[in-house]
Amino acid sequence: MFKFIVQSKTSDSNARIGILHTPHGKIHSPFFMPIGTTGFVKTLTPDELQTIGAEIILANTYHLYLRPGASAVKKFGGLHKWMGWNGPILTDSGGYQIFSLQENRKNPHINAGIHRAHVKISDEGVEFKSHIDGSIHFFTPEKVIKIENALGADIIMALDECIPYDADKKYTLEATKRTHEWAVKCKKAHKIKSQALFAIVQGGMFKDLRIESAKFITNLDLPGTAIGGLSVGETKTKMYEMIETVMPHINNKKPVYLMGVGSPIDILEAIDRGIDMFDCVMPTRLARHGSFWDKNGRYNIKNSRYRLDQKPLMDKCGCYTCKKFTRSYIRHLFMEKETLGLRLMTIHNLYFLLNLMREARIAIIENKFGKFKKSFLAKFKESNE
Amino acid sequence: MFKFIVQSKTSDSNARIGILHTPHGKIHSPFFMPIGTTGFVKTLTPDELQTIGAEIILANTYHLYLRPGASAVKKFGGLHKWMGWNGPILTDSGGYQIFSLQENRKNPHINAGIHRAHVKISDEGVEFKSHIDGSIHFFTPEKVIKIENALGADIIMALDECIPYDADKKYTLEATKRTHEWAVKCKKAHKIKSQALFAIVQGGMFKDLRIESAKFITNLDLPGTAIGGLSVGETKTKMYEMIETVMPHINNKKPVYLMGVGSPIDILEAIDRGIDMFDCVMPTRLARHGSFWDKNGRYNIKNSRYRLDQKPLMDKCGCYTCKKFTRSYIRHLFMEKETLGLRLMTIHNLYFLLNLMREARIAIIENKFGKFKKSFLAKFKESNE
Repeated sequence: MFKFIVQSKTSDSNARIGILHTPHGKIHSPFFMPIGTTGFVKTLTPDELQTIGAEIILANTYHLYLRPGASAVKKFGGLHKWMGWNGPILTDSGGYQIFSLQENRKNPHINAGIHRAHVKISDEGVEFKSHIDGSIHFFTPEKVIKIENALGADIIMALDECIPYDADKKYTLEATKRTHEWAVKCKKAHKIKSQALFAIVQGGMFKDLRIESAKFITNLDLPGTAIGGLSVGETKTKMYEMIETVMPHINNKKPVYLMGVGSPIDILEAIDRGIDMFDCVMPTRLARHGSFWDKNGRYNIKNSRYRLDQKPLMDKCGCYTCKKFTRSYIRHLFMEKETLGLRLMTIHNLYFLLNLMREARIAIIENKFGKFKKSFLAKFKESNE
Repeated sequence: MFKFIVQSKTSDSNARIGILHTPHGKIHSPFFMPIGTTGFVKTLTPDELQTIGAEIILANTYHLYLRPGASAVKKFGGLHKWMGWNGPILTDSGGYQIFSLQENRKNPHINAGIHRAHVKISDEGVEFKSHIDGSIHFFTPEKVIKIENALGADIIMALDECIPYDADKKYTLEATKRTHEWAVKCKKAHKIKSQALFAIVQGGMFKDLRIESAKFITNLDLPGTAIGGLSVGETKTKMYEMIETVMPHINNKKPVYLMGVGSPIDILEAIDRGIDMFDCVMPTRLARHGSFWDKNGRYNIKNSRYRLDQKPLMDKCGCYTCKKFTRSYIRHLFMEKETLGLRLMTIHNLYFLLNLMREARIAIIENKFGKFKKSFLAKFKESNE
C-alpha cells in the first residue's frame, strides 16, 4: 500500500518530484507537513487544512502517549478517525521531544513548549518525566513502535537520539550507534504492513559519522529515510553541507525526509539537494505570534503601520484570509487578543508555505527549479520585523 | 428600506413570526443576534456565522468607538465591509457597557469583561473612563448617534441608562426620564434614513414607570422598540411580569427587542409574550467556558465522564461540530487549552440556540407554540453541571 514513485528530476539541481502512495491517499512530493502534535494543528479544523492544500500532517507519539493515551486513540479506531483527518499522517517517535526535556542540553530548535526535566538515556531506551504531571516513563524502541502501531499513522518513525550540534565526536559516535541499534530493534518490532517505518540518519556535525550513519540506515532497507539532528543551532552552511554529505549514501528510490526543517529558504535549499519531505512548527508558531510571510519575507501584523492598512496580508494570495480580510482587521483581532486572528494568520502562513511547495513542484516539472529558487531567494528576507 | 411585516400569530399565546427587511437583507423573527461586540463574534468567521444560521449580529458602539475608532471603520466603508459580514447588523449604544463600568453599582448580568471605573451621569450625557487606557470620554445622545452613523449598522440603538433592579423609585424615575430625553435627542440627531433607530423602554421594577416609559417611547414613533433593564438580577417571575406590563403599551406593528436576554428558557417565555428580537453573550461565553447545551440542558465538556465518550455533543444535532467530532475529542482540545475547542463549542451553542428559534418559528406557523414551549421546558434544565 506504500509506494514512492519519482516522476521527474531536474538537470540543474538534485530537486525531484514524486508521488508517495499511502493507505490514506497520495501525497505530491516535495511536500511540507503541518504539525498537529497532540492530534490537532493549532487553531484549524481538518477541513480547513484540506482547503489550504495540506496532503499529510504530522502528529507526535510522545504527546499522544501522554494525552489522551494510545489505547484511547485506538479505541476510537485510530488517530485518523479520532481527530477527523482522513488524509495521510506521519507520527514522529517522540525522541526529539524527549531529548528536548533534558536539562543542561542545548535545544536550539524553536522552543518545543516542553519544560526541560530529568532524562536518563541508556542503550535500552530513555527514561523521562511527563511535562504534564511529572510522572516517570520509559521508552524503548519496541514500546515506541507499539504505541505508533496503536495510533495507526501511515508513516511511523523509529526512536532516535537527537544529538546537540556541539557534542564532541566521542558522544556523537555513541549516540549515533545507539540510534542505529534502536532502528534495528524498531524494524524487528514493527509487524503492521500498512504502516511505513522510516529510520533516522544521525552523526552530528561529523562528515564521517554522517556517512557511516547514512549507509547503516540505508542498509536497513526500510520504505523511507529521515535525516535528523539538523537545524539544531548549526550554521546554514553547515546544515547544507551535512545534507550534501549524506545524500549520496541514501537510497534515492525511497523518499527522504529532512526532520524539523524549516524556513522557506532552508526548504528550497534542501529541495535543491534532493529532499522530499519536511515538517516544522515555524509557519503555525510564527502565525500565533503575529508574524506573516509574503514574497519579500516576514512581517509582524502588530506593527502600528498596519492600523489602517486596507490591503490583504499578501497581494494576490489565494488563501481564505487574504481573499476576505484586511491587514487592519487582522491587526485589530490581535490587539483584541481574539483567537480568530491566530487562525487567520495560521491559514495564511500554511497556505504560503504549501503554495511555495506547489510552485517548487511546477518549477521542477518545467526543469527550471534552479532559476525559481534563485528568484525567490533574491527577494525573500528571513525577517523584516 | 426598513420594514417589519408580521406574518403569523398564535391563538394560544402572543408569539408571532415576521420578517424584518433591512438594507443588508431580511431576518426571520423571532430571532437571536450573536454578539460581535468589537467587530467579531469570538472564535468565528462571518462565513461560519452564516452557515450556523445567523441572520443578524450585534456589535457595540462603546467598544468600536474605543478601538479601532468610528472614523477608522468609516474609512473602510463601514462595519459590514470592515469585518466582512454582509448581513444585517445592530449596534448597541454602549449605554449598558458604560453603566457596567460604574463602581458600587450592581451589575448582575454575566460579567461584561470591563473593569468598573469612574462614571459620571448628568442629564447632558455620561462621562466614563476607557477600560483600555483609562482615558476620559463623554457620550451625549448626539455623539452616540454620530458614532453609530459612522459605523453604519442597519439598526442603531438610542443612548439609555440601564437601571439596577434594586434602585429606589425616585432614582428609577429620574433615570427613566433621562432615558426619555436622550431618546428624543437621538431621534432629532439621526438623519440617515437607511439606519433604523430604536429607543429603549426603562422604568426599573415599577409597573407604573414601565407603562409610562412604554407609552413615551412608543409615541416617538421610531421603527422599533426595545425593552431594557431586564435580566439584571431580578427574579424570572419579575422579569416576565415586567414584559407583560409593558407589551400592551407598545406598538405591535413594530419589532420589539428584549435586550440582553437570554437563556433558552427566558427566550421561549419572552417569545410567548410577543418579543421578536434577542441578544445575549450566554451561548458564546458558556462555550468558551466548556459548557454546551442539549435538549436536557447544560453540561460541561471538561467533566471526566466524557474522556472516552464517542458521542457528539448532542444526538442528531445538525451543527458542524456534532457532525464531525466526538465529546472525547472536544474534551481533549479543552484539556490541551486549544482554541479550536472554543470554536467548536461556540458553533454548537449558537447553532443550538438559532435552531431553537427556527423550531419556535415553525411551531408558531403551525399554531402550536404553547405546546412546543411546554415540551421544551419539561426537559431542559438550566444547568446539569
